[in-house]
Amino acid sequence: MEMTQKIAIGKLAMLVATLTDEELEIFSEQLKDVEYCQGKSGSMSMQKVISAVETSAKRNHLISDKLYRETHALYHAILEALEGVMRGQIVAGDMMRTVGLRFAIVRGSPYEEFDEGEWLAVAFYGTIGAPVKGLEHEAFGLGINHIG
Amino acid sequence: MEMTQKIAIGKLAMLVATLTDEELEIFSEQLKDVEYCQGKSGSMSMQKVISAVETSAKRNHLISDKLYRETHALYHAILEALEGVMRGQIVAGDMMRTVGLRFAIVRGSPYEEFDEGEWLAVAFYGTIGAPVKGLEHEAFGLGINHIG
Amino acid sequence: MEMTQKIAIGKLAMLVATLTDEELEIFSEQLKDVEYCQGKSGSMSMQKVISAVETSAKRNHLISDKLYRETHALYHAILEALEGVMRGQIVAGDMMRTVGLRFAIVRGSPYEEFDEGEWLAVAFYGTIGAPVKGLEHEAFGLGINHIG
Amino acid sequence: MEMTQKIAIGKLAMLVATLTDEELEIFSEQLKDVEYCQGKSGSMSMQKVISAVETSAKRNHLISDKLYRETHALYHAILEALEGVMRGQIVAGDMMRTVGLRFAIVRGSPYEEFDEGEWLAVAFYGTIGAPVKGLEHEAFGLGINHIG
Amino acid sequence: MEMTQKIAIGKLAMLVATLTDEELEIFSEQLKDVEYCQGKSGSMSMQKVISAVETSAKRNHLISDKLYRETHALYHAILEALEGVMRGQIVAGDMMRTVGLRFAIVRGSPYEEFDEGEWLAVAFYGTIGAPVKGLEHEAFGLGINHIG
Amino acid sequence: MEMTQKIAIGKLAMLVATLTDEELEIFSEQLKDVEYCQGKSGSMSMQKVISAVETSAKRNHLISDKLYRETHALYHAILEALEGVMRGQIVAGDMMRTVGLRFAIVRGSPYEEFDEGEWLAVAFYGTIGAPVKGLEHEAFGLGINHIG
Ligand SMILES: [Mg+2]
Ligand SMILES: [Mg+2]
Ligand SMILES: [Mg+2]
Ligand SMILES: [Mg+2]
Ligand SMILES: [Mg+2]
Ligand SMILES: [Mg+2]
Repeated sequence: MEMTQKIAIGKLAMLVATLTDEELEIFSEQLKDVEYCQGKSGSMSMQKVISAVETSAKRNHLISDKLYRETHALYHAILEALEGVMRGQIVAGDMMRTVGLRFAIVRGSPYEEFDEGEWLAVAFYGTIGAPVKGLEHEAFGLGINHIG
Repeated sequence: MEMTQKIAIGKLAMLVATLTDEELEIFSEQLKDVEYCQGKSGSMSMQKVISAVETSAKRNHLISDKLYRETHALYHAILEALEGVMRGQIVAGDMMRTVGLRFAIVRGSPYEEFDEGEWLAVAFYGTIGAPVKGLEHEAFGLGINHIG
Repeated sequence: MEMTQKIAIGKLAMLVATLTDEELEIFSEQLKDVEYCQGKSGSMSMQKVISAVETSAKRNHLISDKLYRETHALYHAILEALEGVMRGQIVAGDMMRTVGLRFAIVRGSPYEEFDEGEWLAVAFYGTIGAPVKGLEHEAFGLGINHIG
Repeated sequence: MEMTQKIAIGKLAMLVATLTDEELEIFSEQLKDVEYCQGKSGSMSMQKVISAVETSAKRNHLISDKLYRETHALYHAILEALEGVMRGQIVAGDMMRTVGLRFAIVRGSPYEEFDEGEWLAVAFYGTIGAPVKGLEHEAFGLGINHIG
Repeated sequence: MEMTQKIAIGKLAMLVATLTDEELEIFSEQLKDVEYCQGKSGSMSMQKVISAVETSAKRNHLISDKLYRETHALYHAILEALEGVMRGQIVAGDMMRTVGLRFAIVRGSPYEEFDEGEWLAVAFYGTIGAPVKGLEHEAFGLGINHIG
Repeated sequence: MEMTQKIAIGKLAMLVATLTDEELEIFSEQLKDVEYCQGKSGSMSMQKVISAVETSAKRNHLISDKLYRETHALYHAILEALEGVMRGQIVAGDMMRTVGLRFAIVRGSPYEEFDEGEWLAVAFYGTIGAPVKGLEHEAFGLGINHIG
């Protein structure tokens, strides 16, 4: 499938969220074209997951902590990514199930045209399951938004 | 993040759906532990996307075409993966927006315990956007289910 | 579980939609306290399912065909019942999967207090599955609304 | 409506969840073909409802407490059933509304073909409403999944 | 767009929830045809928002506090309005984001036909955003239901 | 409720979508601070509604027809607004119900801080109902997004 984008920020976000450091090494060349960071959240509260991503994005200067505009762009990218993680499941209160998520945030200019500007990709990868270690399976989520 | 699973079928499905043939080469050793296939669907109808995955899974003997049980397992894995692709968006009728999706189906035994048996992972990766080429961004979805 | 309602219109709707004529015979005494009708829809289009229920309700004088108010009450009861049938699944265009649904509409006064007036229950029972006969499983949905 | 299944595990689950002991007596012959249990949950927290069903299923040996695979099958059947109970309503935190639910879990072999194996049905029946006794109406949910 | 309704209770609810007292003055003539009240909720818990509207409706005699029927009609109008406020976003536990909502409840007879009776409109208007003042944007929701 | 925004683009969009020309006159001063346009869509297909808004936005130069970025911002604002119009209802294929919607698009700089830049508001107002004229009630939706 040909991508009309010159840089696939979503694919890069997924790789950063998923691969071991050693595996990620292979894609180091592609990663030079974007800014990115990664983090972890083992919380069972979705609000804490959202906070962890926002904090990480600001601390790593992927978004400005002075502009609501950038927090807004990130927030909706996170929400879209969480749809993939939750897959339409009813969620209520704290989730009780174990959640172990690694996340990646990638900021870059995916399109050839200069004016398309910068976009954000947020990826989650991890496990969700019963509150007993090992009783869980993988989950993924990807969200994309324009920013900047 | 330590995985309590010995084989990450979801991660492998993501890589098969997302990477170029050349990039996938690097993971060929890990892919020996599972059965998998891949395909494409450029349809704008979600039902045709579902059909394309089911047909591909049966043609490549990833699921039995004799057992509803296995079609049922695959169908719910596809639905979960499509939640990630659609990200909670309202969908009505044919989608009009361009959809270009590559999919991967992986079947394997992710857990150490023999009795946990086989599981399926379905991944979609591609673009969704306005009906003008280039006016689209990446989307991804992963679904996991027990089977066999 | 004690019901604070004197007549369980939802339970009756479930029984009418689900039981064979012979089995339903046993509940004939309870059914004397309400008005009800039943019907079938084998359509794969959700709009045709909705129409079939509305038509049946009007033809059997369970709701007035002169008042939008009563059509409105029925419509939302149908929508709630369809949530149970679809179980949060993404639906797009015609559903392609086989759908064979029996429905029941019950109108009655469930509460002791006279002023609580009449309420509607709509129940669906049937199968949804792959477009091959036999490759499907049961589905059920119940919706309740105030009316009249 | 002819059922291509020899045993309607969903219908049986609904009857077990709904009928009085006396009414259920009539279906005792049909219930011999399946394994089943029932329970109650008066909690207003959805997570506690899920836990109550899982605990009941394991205590009554309807699913193995040793295999994640079986907990996974049950969990998704519960989630599907809860969609019918909640009917698409926004849920946030503890629900505050009264919830009084009776549930039934049925495990059996619905299909003629031996290889289709065992399936699970989870049914909920009860009331949801304002936090004042009597201010509530009936709700139902049914979920079905392959298992074993 | 011609309205086949003689009184647009939804539009009036929107105006009451949205306009300043001074701006609302202009519509005072139209507001004479309906009963209405307004209130505020700054809570971050959706259940507290729902409670605030119900309490206000009963205190201002817009619905009877003796009839579940009327609470039921209001409850579903509130839920519909909250869909507009939340816009399909995943909600879990307390929302953490700042929520400042003004609400309006309007009760009236929108249709020419006497028998169409009374209907309710519930409108929310306010802001939702990051937990820092100023980092938020507007949100709106309207729900309509038959009552009385 | 104090708004920390200097211009309430969402409120203006709702007023433009809802008020008669005469009523809107009153707000002409406030409307000088933003760019806006309005339109109508009587289609029963959601995709045609989306197209109508996008076409109107481009024809009236509210968004650039050269930048995907701006179409993307508008598209998500439309989707959010449609959530309010549909209120969580299951939608499948063409909706069959009558839909008569007026829409407004407002572009402006809501925040005091210059760097927060431009934002879009999309509002829908109209009726949705049974396919008989008069059998319908009002519906509203508002979506907001950053742009430019
Ligand atoms: Mg997008
Ligand atoms: Mg699962
Ligand atoms: Mg209700
Ligand atoms: Mg199923
Ligand atoms: Mg309605
Ligand atoms: Mg927003």
